[in-house]
Amino acid sequence: MEINNTHYTSLWYEASTDRVLYIDQTKLPWELVIREMKTFEDGIRAIVDMEVRGAPLIGVAAAFAMYVGNSPGITPGEMADRLIATRPTAVNLANAVEQMLLITDNGQPITDNSSLVTGHLSLPPRKWGSLFLDKALEIRQREIDCCHMIGEHGLPVIQKIANRKGGEPINILTHCNAGWLATVDYGTALAPVYLAHDSGIPVHVWVDETRPRNQGARLTVYELSQHGVPNTLIVDNAGGHLMQQGKVDLVIVGADRITANGDVVNKIGTYLKALAAFDNLVPFYVAAPTSSFDPDTATGKDVLIEERGEDEVLFINGYKNRIAPEGTRVINPAFDVTPARLITGYLTEDGRRQDYKTDKQSNRLS
Amino acid sequence: MEINNTHYTSLWYEASTDRVLYIDQTKLPWELVIREMKTFEDGIRAIVDMEVRGAPLIGVAAAFAMYVGNSPGITPGEMADRLIATRPTAVNLANAVEQMLLITDNGQPITDNSSLVTGHLSLPPRKWGSLFLDKALEIRQREIDCCHMIGEHGLPVIQKIANRKGGEPINILTHCNAGWLATVDYGTALAPVYLAHDSGIPVHVWVDETRPRNQGARLTVYELSQHGVPNTLIVDNAGGHLMQQGKVDLVIVGADRITANGDVVNKIGTYLKALAAFDNLVPFYVAAPTSSFDPDTATGKDVLIEERGEDEVLFINGYKNRIAPEGTRVINPAFDVTPARLITGYLTEDGRRQDYKTDKQSNRLS
Repeated sequence: MEINNTHYTSLWYEASTDRVLYIDQTKLPWELVIREMKTFEDGIRAIVDMEVRGAPLIGVAAAFAMYVGNSPGITPGEMADRLIATRPTAVNLANAVEQMLLITDNGQPITDNSSLVTGHLSLPPRKWGSLFLDKALEIRQREIDCCHMIGEHGLPVIQKIANRKGGEPINILTHCNAGWLATVDYGTALAPVYLAHDSGIPVHVWVDETRPRNQGARLTVYELSQHGVPNTLIVDNAGGHLMQQGKVDLVIVGADRITANGDVVNKIGTYLKALAAFDNLVPFYVAAPTSSFDPDTATGKDVLIEERGEDEVLFINGYKNRIAPEGTRVINPAFDVTPARLITGYLTEDGRRQDYKTDKQSNRLS
Repeated sequence: MEINNTHYTSLWYEASTDRVLYIDQTKLPWELVIREMKTFEDGIRAIVDMEVRGAPLIGVAAAFAMYVGNSPGITPGEMADRLIATRPTAVNLANAVEQMLLITDNGQPITDNSSLVTGHLSLPPRKWGSLFLDKALEIRQREIDCCHMIGEHGLPVIQKIANRKGGEPINILTHCNAGWLATVDYGTALAPVYLAHDSGIPVHVWVDETRPRNQGARLTVYELSQHGVPNTLIVDNAGGHLMQQGKVDLVIVGADRITANGDVVNKIGTYLKALAAFDNLVPFYVAAPTSSFDPDTATGKDVLIEERGEDEVLFINGYKNRIAPEGTRVINPAFDVTPARLITGYLTEDGRRQDYKTDKQSNRLS
């Protein structure tokens, strides 16, 4: 989507220079820094340091890390293992890495091992991986297409509320950043918002700041504002109050993983907003590509929830100022599980799914 | 309670020097700054700038502001009006001011107007207000006694869980700061925790950081740690997840106002924790002196919710670092309403009340 009236994506391949480039999201909203992923270690670091973040985007970044990292010194299997260990919760990363591995032979680089004996050693190692490049580009394009289709399928949900409100803005609450910065373009949760805005439907977004990393305050406010979508920042504590006051028409969030029973693993705090939406009869939608669906895991209780470091809580946005006394003990779970029973529907590239809804909820919201 | 092994209260009167002293809570946990409330304007400023905060404490501070402010230049009625306008949500402030007014005559200073004609003009104006001093001291002592009794009545709730857990720590989640810093001593929500700890029951407190002002991270962590009570800081988003994982045995929060139907007006975000507690069968108690009960207001929907400034959200703890882009729009409601149906019981100085519970909830938790 737009930054300063120019179209950007969060990660792209520049064919003319054979470079993988991405926006360093740890610098936003203060600076727009474009970085190059030159090596496998660059790719690992970009994911670990969350220069790229958001479940769909880290899958794409991992695929490109295997492309730039492809060399005789490390097998694809070794790369895959290290990548999967960086962020255990989101299924997209594992999915992307698995697709890359499928084009290799037993975990060995397949592309041009032959070149080792056919005299192509003078080629830069990354050129051996043209099949990796094709696959990474395919994964990236599929994420963009998915997000656009998620937007298309979510648009009628917003349109229906718009018809009821007759010209008044539709107030949509979102948590964390599931916009184009978290994907490659459009976003998941925000794709329907962008499509609605671009088609002239008046939308206004309540943005949860999303402690501890403040992706809402830093990224969602930034990308919505840059694209011209009206939005208001709130603390994570405020969403329930706004719903009680009738100021939220719709909640849309993304997902890091959706288990077989429809439970949604997403940024810590999502569950609390789902409870509040349920309590106030506000529709609560989860927007995610089908690659975020994990049919092999029965329920959200079976998903390992990543615990992150204390400093994310103790120091805001990496600033030096502490927010709690020296010696404070902290725990910092990064995700929580929203039970399927609280979810009105799922927006995917295939359409809208409501199959997981319990009868009770169907009765409440139909 | 204790700071550096010395017993403190949050506001006290030093008779030998006729001074009203208080801990400046905006400086905690970084510095322990004791300030003197010398004038009425000092009192107003202390409340507005939240150097004193917490519903019970601002009532006490308002009473002492009328004592130090008592002078021919302003009537008690005028003082009362200005004090009540500082923080509209908590009922304690209005209650305290009303008690002070009851000892005046039609809003005029009653104490020693006679002194104007009997030659006592040489007395410092504040000496005229000895009745004001007596009443302010009485209100302060009553708050201390109330809090101690709240602790006594809450203790069996913790003891019962302790009996079940057989020596393992009881995990108690609290929101904001409803400890001794928010009152004068003991606290409301934390009074049972301190009494349990002091009587040898192993307790551990999950402390919500409580955005936007971070009273949990700054004050609750500080006062619990200083008193030796084990505690762990979490972001406001994390509490629901901990409850799902069975890591919370009990929630206790304070209240700024409890309406006739049992709805609880408390720090923004309380409602979300109440929903999560209800969803996970975790007992949710509200601890407050009866002075926080407002029988004249029917429900929480009838209470004016204070909206505070944008900068509380945009700048953490008054630091200069912004957390969102320039031009970000913010709304900042300070309180929310937790419906009575979500509340297991109320701890007051009179005992435990569960009268507001719906039959449905009684069945779930009895």
